[in-house]
Formats: sequence, structure tokens, C-alpha cells
Amino acid sequence: MIEDKNQQRTQLSDLGEFGLIDHLTKNFKISQKSTVKSIGDDAAVLDFKNEKIVITTDLLVEGVHFDLSYVPLKHLGYKAVVVNLSDVYAMNANATQVTVSIAVSNRFPLEALEELYAGIETAAKIYNIDVVGGDTTSSTTGLLISVTAIGTIESDDEVYRDGAKSSDLLVVTGDLGAAYMGLQILEREKEVYKVNPNNQPDLDGYSYIIERQLKPEARKDIIKLLKDLNVKPSSMIDVSDGLSSEIMHLCKQSNVGCDLYEEKIPLDPQVISTCEEFNIDSTTVALNGGEDYELLFTISQEDYSKIKANPNLTVIGYMKEAQEGIHLVTRADTKIPIKAQGWKNFNA
Amino acid sequence: MIEDKNQQRTQLSDLGEFGLIDHLTKNFKISQKSTVKSIGDDAAVLDFKNEKIVITTDLLVEGVHFDLSYVPLKHLGYKAVVVNLSDVYAMNANATQVTVSIAVSNRFPLEALEELYAGIETAAKIYNIDVVGGDTTSSTTGLLISVTAIGTIESDDEVYRDGAKSSDLLVVTGDLGAAYMGLQILEREKEVYKVNPNNQPDLDGYSYIIERQLKPEARKDIIKLLKDLNVKPSSMIDVSDGLSSEIMHLCKQSNVGCDLYEEKIPLDPQVISTCEEFNIDSTTVALNGGEDYELLFTISQEDYSKIKANPNLTVIGYMKEAQEGIHLVTRADTKIPIKAQGWKNFNA
Repeated sequence: MIEDKNQQRTQLSDLGEFGLIDHLTKNFKISQKSTVKSIGDDAAVLDFKNEKIVITTDLLVEGVHFDLSYVPLKHLGYKAVVVNLSDVYAMNANATQVTVSIAVSNRFPLEALEELYAGIETAAKIYNIDVVGGDTTSSTTGLLISVTAIGTIESDDEVYRDGAKSSDLLVVTGDLGAAYMGLQILEREKEVYKVNPNNQPDLDGYSYIIERQLKPEARKDIIKLLKDLNVKPSSMIDVSDGLSSEIMHLCKQSNVGCDLYEEKIPLDPQVISTCEEFNIDSTTVALNGGEDYELLFTISQEDYSKIKANPNLTVIGYMKEAQEGIHLVTRADTKIPIKAQGWKNFNA
Repeated sequence: MIEDKNQQRTQLSDLGEFGLIDHLTKNFKISQKSTVKSIGDDAAVLDFKNEKIVITTDLLVEGVHFDLSYVPLKHLGYKAVVVNLSDVYAMNANATQVTVSIAVSNRFPLEALEELYAGIETAAKIYNIDVVGGDTTSSTTGLLISVTAIGTIESDDEVYRDGAKSSDLLVVTGDLGAAYMGLQILEREKEVYKVNPNNQPDLDGYSYIIERQLKPEARKDIIKLLKDLNVKPSSMIDVSDGLSSEIMHLCKQSNVGCDLYEEKIPLDPQVISTCEEFNIDSTTVALNGGEDYELLFTISQEDYSKIKANPNLTVIGYMKEAQEGIHLVTRADTKIPIKAQGWKNFNA
């Protein structure tokens, strides 16, 4: 929210022909053996030998998925990559490459895009993936980022959404609801800033939840952990829209039901205290907040002993027969049906 | 330009959760053996055995790349797929899958998106590719389409932009400039329509050039033809930005020069007559018009006898040493340096 009035501004139209993607990606390193040809031709060439590949794509739209008044462009570039990698890991696969396309209006100077690509480069380094292509074009308004991520799976390692069995355990990584509460803090401080632009935002005590919103991480570590533990989930999905949505996906596609235990849902203390401050129910936030990018998966009960000691993994429910439905079992031991939320983006 | 006032309109927000991509793609058939898992999970799974894959991506933005006042949505869906396949073929590869993501504002009813996806489905059928994924989100304004195309190449078949040698022949498929002149006609009729909406557009005699603009085709046939003729180009690119730009790409990346012969540039009679009508130089249109989606490639002179009889292929120039520069040799036998055009999209 603090703008540097003296920042350098290079108009995108000054760059001349074909310079932009090359300029933005010129320092990007190639680290994957499978990348045969990267940016600079009609297409990238990849050689995965005998491995199967996974491919997934996501769009991030200004004014819908992010607000540049409080999202730094570097964080946005990082997040745009990470949310796609999360989908690759949710297949139990290794992420190897991404393509990144942007549509951007003339109000963005080159330096802004350099910030965005610095974030993309940081994500590529940390997750050890190659940026192998993209497209850059103008938009009539705002910024839009389209990322496609590619990954590989050995033999029969892939895990779909449709493999959950009745009596399987439902497991989630990390904790839930923090990204949503981080967004509430950022929105609140934006309103304060609008009233008095000289006010410095008051973000003390919210660092974890704000970081979860602005700079989420994908659970690459969990894919390795599950291999090390010799656990293959029966189904898996990443938590992008909220726990309730993801549970419904697993149940619908696997044709099973589920009991989710409210008391088991992992919450960070900062989420609990911020929920109290905002007078919101923390379970509602965990169920519907979204953008946590944790992994939600089911395992056979036989595998419980392999995972029970791990602090990254929390068993939060049991899969049931489909006709038993999908329920939240509250702390008061009542059962409440879990329902789909409306699709936020298309509701005004 | 003729609007059906009685068309059915289903609001996107009425569709409920997660329904849109599934709804739009539910009739799409899978035809590629390499498609293991398609739409409906966190990612698609593809199995190419030992083949290398190529991957390419393009964005199409309303108000920048298309104008919905004269581009039917079905054609737009078709074109969005085709322009990406063109990049795959320009690698000398076979296109196998695409992902299609759209950002769309609330002013589009479901029926409009169904039209768009009907065009995507038609392209998928004709080019025998599978639609294996995508993302659908709202935009604050307008429509944006992001397509990623995937293809395969056997052994060492890939053709890059950097393999042209001095004394190679420069060859182009089909004819050039028609898509640009088709756009001029559509823009002219739009202006006429603005003045008098009761006027029916006068498109007689322009059918070829209008079709080249609204419904371009990618040259899948040429990739097969080159295999059949046992010709492997030394370099190749597709003509999306205009002949001059593409020649400069090949020359720059291959470190060679080029003499392009004006009299050899293939032009359709409708392009010539429309250029006369608009008082535009047809060579300028062929050089800078773009969107022809023909293939431009270089071959060794030894291969000339293999291609000379083919009506789809025209030799238009010779590659030279880099220091000899890149020139248009005019009908009057003068040499004019070919220069890059500015990047249209970012110039106001």
C-alpha cells in the first residue's frame, strides 16, 4: 500500500517487437533434464522418456482473484505458479515445467512485470521447475495470468479424486482457514488506508495468516513424505476452494459419504484469535475459506500406523457409504449435512 | 451483426458450483490413446510412451485479438484452438491435446459459452485432438481465452527456428494476406452497420478472405505432406504476425540473411482485388498482415525437386549469409531492407 513515487517506468510499447517474454525470462535457468527446448520457438519440447505426464491450468484475474492494492506483484507471480503446482502434487506427481501467459494493460510499466516475473522465477527455483513458454499480450483492463503446469508420474503412482472407499480415513495436511483470515485483515487495512492514506497498516500479530494469503506454498514435501512412508492415498485433491467443496468432490467422484469431525480440523492459533476478533466461526472459515493449498486425501485404515506420528498430517474424518451422506460431526456431537457453497466468482 | 432478440439466456451464476466446465465439455469425445485421464480431476494424465512432447500456449483477448460485433463465438472457439495447433505443427509435430481456459464477464449467458465450446469441439474433431482440461472464471470485463496445446514428435523430427543455412530455399504454404484483408472488410461493414443497423452487410465477393480471418485453418496437412515427401525442413515457423516478422525470426535465430522475392509471394486473386479496392499495396499486406497461419520453412536446395511440383508450396526466397542482411527483392529488382514492425498490441 506504500507507493514509490520515484520508481522507474518503462512503457511496454517502448520495448519493440517480441522483446517482452524474452526480456522477462532471460535469466531463468533450466534445471529439468526433460526440458529439451524452452522459450523462444513456436513451442517447447519436453522428453519424459517412459513417464506419464500430468497437465493442469489455472487463470488468475485482477479484481476477481487478486487486488493489486495490497498484493505485491512479486507475491502474485509466486502464487500464480504455486497454485498450479498444487494441482500437480494433488495427482501425486512431480511438477517439472510451467508455461506462464499474461494479458496486461498499458498502465503497467515494464518494471511491474519484472517484479511479477521475479516472483515466478523465485517459485521456479524453490520448486525446481522450468518456465518453458508463455504468451504476453495487452488487455483492455487489468492483469490476467494464465499458468499451465506439467509434471510426471512414475508407473502407476497417480492418485485421482475417485478412489476413496467407505471406511477410509480422511487426512488433511497443515492447517486450514488462514489464507481466508489473512484476506480479511488485508481488506480491513485497505479500508483504513482509504480513509487515511497516511495510516501505516497494522499487521502486527497477523504475519502467519497474511503470508498464507499472499504467499501460499504447495505441498511438494507431502508427495515425498507419502513415498517415504510408503503410503499411496486412495484419493486426493488440493484445498483451493475450501474443505467442504473438496470433500464433496472426493465423495461425489468416489461415490462415498463422509463424517468430518469438527474437533479434528487443524487450525492455527492466529486463525482462532482472528476469527474471535472478527466474530466469525472458525469452523465455517476452515470449511469455506479456501486458498489453503493443503492436500486432502483418503487412506486405507491399514496405513494409519504409518502416518499417525506425523505432525503434518491430521486425520479429520471417515469415509462412509454414499447413502449415509456427507456430514460435519460437531463438537456437540450433532450431525450437520455439508452443502456446496455457491460459486463465488459468478455471484455479483 | 444480426442479433437474435429472443435467444435464451441462462445466467452463469444460476449454474451452481463447478458445473460450468463439466457442462460445456460433457459431450467432448476422447480420441487419443495418450489421454489417460481427461477433465474432472486436479490435472489431466497423458501417456506418450517414448515420444517427446511439444507444448505451446496463446492468449486471445476481446478488444485486442477479436471483436465480438462481427466474430461469431463458434468461430472464435474454433480459431482459439487452431492458432495453437498451428504452433505445434510449426515444430513438425502432431497435435494431440489442448487445455482451454476462459475468463468471462457476467454479460455472457451460458448459451454464448455453449456456442464458443461448440467451435472448440468442432476444431477438436477436425484436427483429432482431445480437450483434456481448463479453467473457467469470471472477468471484470470481456472475454479472454487461454489455450495450451500439446503434441508429440517421433525420434528427432522436431524442427526449430534456428536451423536455416545460407543457400537454403525459403518456402511458404498456401497464400498470404487474406486474413488481414478479411478483417478490413469486416471492420468496414461494422462502420456501415453503426451508421445504419438495418443495412445488411455486403460480403459478396469476399467469402475467401473473410473465412481466412474468421475461421483460419492450421496446416496439419503439410506436416503429413513433408513426411510423405521425405523432406525435413531445416527451420520452420508459422505465419501468425506476418511474413516479415517470421522471416526475421528465422534469420535472427539461425544467424543467416535472406532475399525474399516480391514476385514470388503467393496471393489469392481476392486479396489482390480487395487491396486495389482499399488502395493498399498487396505486398505490404502479405508482409505485415499476419494471422494467415501458413507455415514458413527452409529446406536444403537438394530437396527442391521433391517439393517443386506441389501447388501447396511456393519457394519465395533464398537464405544468405547473415552479413548480407534481410531484403525484399522488388519486381523492379531493387533491394529494400525488411524491418520489424512495432508490436501492434501495445501501441495505442
